[in-house]
Amino acid sequence: MIKTDICIIGAGPVGLFAVFEAGLLKMRCHLIDVLPQVGGQLSEIYPHKPIYDIPGYPTIKAQELIDNQLAQIKPFNPTFTLGEQVSALKKQEDGSYIVQSDEGTEIHCQVVVIAAGLGSFEPRKPALENLTNFERKGVDYMVKDPEKYRGKRIVIAGGGDSALDWTIFLADVAAEVTLIHRSDSFRGAPDSADKIQELAQAGRINLLLSHHLSALAGTSQLASVIAVNKAQETVTIPADYFIPLFGLSPKLGPIAAWGLQIDKNAIEVNTFDYATNVERIFAIGDINTYPGKLKLILCGYHEAALMAQSAFKYVYPDQKLSFKYTTVNGINTF
Amino acid sequence: MIKTDICIIGAGPVGLFAVFEAGLLKMRCHLIDVLPQVGGQLSEIYPHKPIYDIPGYPTIKAQELIDNQLAQIKPFNPTFTLGEQVSALKKQEDGSYIVQSDEGTEIHCQVVVIAAGLGSFEPRKPALENLTNFERKGVDYMVKDPEKYRGKRIVIAGGGDSALDWTIFLADVAAEVTLIHRSDSFRGAPDSADKIQELAQAGRINLLLSHHLSALAGTSQLASVIAVNKAQETVTIPADYFIPLFGLSPKLGPIAAWGLQIDKNAIEVNTFDYATNVERIFAIGDINTYPGKLKLILCGYHEAALMAQSAFKYVYPDQKLSFKYTTVNGINTF
Repeated sequence: MIKTDICIIGAGPVGLFAVFEAGLLKMRCHLIDVLPQVGGQLSEIYPHKPIYDIPGYPTIKAQELIDNQLAQIKPFNPTFTLGEQVSALKKQEDGSYIVQSDEGTEIHCQVVVIAAGLGSFEPRKPALENLTNFERKGVDYMVKDPEKYRGKRIVIAGGGDSALDWTIFLADVAAEVTLIHRSDSFRGAPDSADKIQELAQAGRINLLLSHHLSALAGTSQLASVIAVNKAQETVTIPADYFIPLFGLSPKLGPIAAWGLQIDKNAIEVNTFDYATNVERIFAIGDINTYPGKLKLILCGYHEAALMAQSAFKYVYPDQKLSFKYTTVNGINTF
Repeated sequence: MIKTDICIIGAGPVGLFAVFEAGLLKMRCHLIDVLPQVGGQLSEIYPHKPIYDIPGYPTIKAQELIDNQLAQIKPFNPTFTLGEQVSALKKQEDGSYIVQSDEGTEIHCQVVVIAAGLGSFEPRKPALENLTNFERKGVDYMVKDPEKYRGKRIVIAGGGDSALDWTIFLADVAAEVTLIHRSDSFRGAPDSADKIQELAQAGRINLLLSHHLSALAGTSQLASVIAVNKAQETVTIPADYFIPLFGLSPKLGPIAAWGLQIDKNAIEVNTFDYATNVERIFAIGDINTYPGKLKLILCGYHEAALMAQSAFKYVYPDQKLSFKYTTVNGINTF
């Protein structure tokens, strides 16, 4: 069992900044995120895109903002559980909570902060009849650890950056990589698309353009992926793993069942401390809603600061909070 | 008469960021500040101090933050009136306002945003009986334009950075510079203090340590400054200008008389759009108060963003506001 003061669900920019504001008040944080890396949407969906509305940065690339925020919270030594989805929340007799993940991880905390952005990103799944039969038996929707695929035969499907980038990366790791795409051109970055063509011409990957996924075959474990071209000709590709990378779509997920007041997929909070209707549970960033709410990163930063002031009383019930400026007092690591 | 959409009172970090948020919605801003340069407290009081709690900056010097924010708002071409204090606010029949300064500048605007930090910084004045008689007749509390002092005889009083820095600077500009300080050591930066001693030894300034100000003399115009040492010996220094630099102390100033709800020197606002009780007047940053308020720059940024959404309806009463992300749409200059 992991023990911490505040369990933050979501390791995007707002969740990361909550670590900083909590840290100033000497509260420890553990973050849990369904994505395999920190940074939320910024790292997963648009790492190279410039953001223009972070105060003090005329422009900053999304991943650079995340990297800077990680440096900013380093003095407070946050801990992380990545690639796991929160599945349950168990209230303890003393008011504290145990947060459980779908892989059995348990985190004991005094306060839960939901900073889950648009919700947990769930993979868009291809419409294949027996797809779910092969989940955890050869079908993966996300690459968490590339080493898993070393020496294996991999089929990737998709035409965006994620499909291109992982095809290129796994070409060096897997025994055999096939990329299937329904169109004859890619949506991903042009230089990645060029690299895919090079790898195909060099015989280092199999490239099936203008092919649709048709079926999966296998008994207890995935054995092959079947695709068809426009002439309805069938191709069967032997495969240990099939990884459809069709993007992620946000869902509120198990959070929806925690008794929180929800309005249009967002959690209702007050603007005094961004607390939800359930004691010791706060919601900050894009996942919350209140009159005037703007889904901006900079607003989540403010919400994190006010939340931390209120969270303090649950973590240190016997202490009085005194407000100090970092410009005067600096940062005290712990 | 200056014409703008939004008149922002206060050119500190929050006022500057309001220009950005207004600019995204195609609203023009004019800023007015009593200080002779932009940046508020950050540039005036602690330009070289590091700040640790600006999200995405593990550390940033105060002046660097201001410089970056100026770069960020450059596409929106804000205009400035610096070194003037707002003295009156006149409501027009159509609901718009004219903001007037103590030097007669007039700014016509649809919306007034008060981002005045702790208030207007007013100089701490030495306790000299006839001091106010010589205001604008030789006594200045701030150096707005150093050229004013070219070829003149200047007496500066004080022992902090401001007194040291201006003594050093004016040594090259004025005909004669005398620095009077009541102690025998300085509070300012050690390298500035060293430079002062060098200038004194080289005969380029007159340095009177352990001297108290005693009186000002002159008829219609200042003629001399009189100081005494601990032995009660009197020194009379002929002077065209006397510049006491004893720091600035914040005052709410004329804003206090505008019918705004005030609580402990702060303006009460709601948290929907940070509007005051007076229509078309908003207050953001350290000058406002509401339940949960934290006087943090990062909170002022959030307040600026929500304010701009509401200000839009006064500037463009016939248009519908559509919310866009900069990551998707970039910045459109005007």
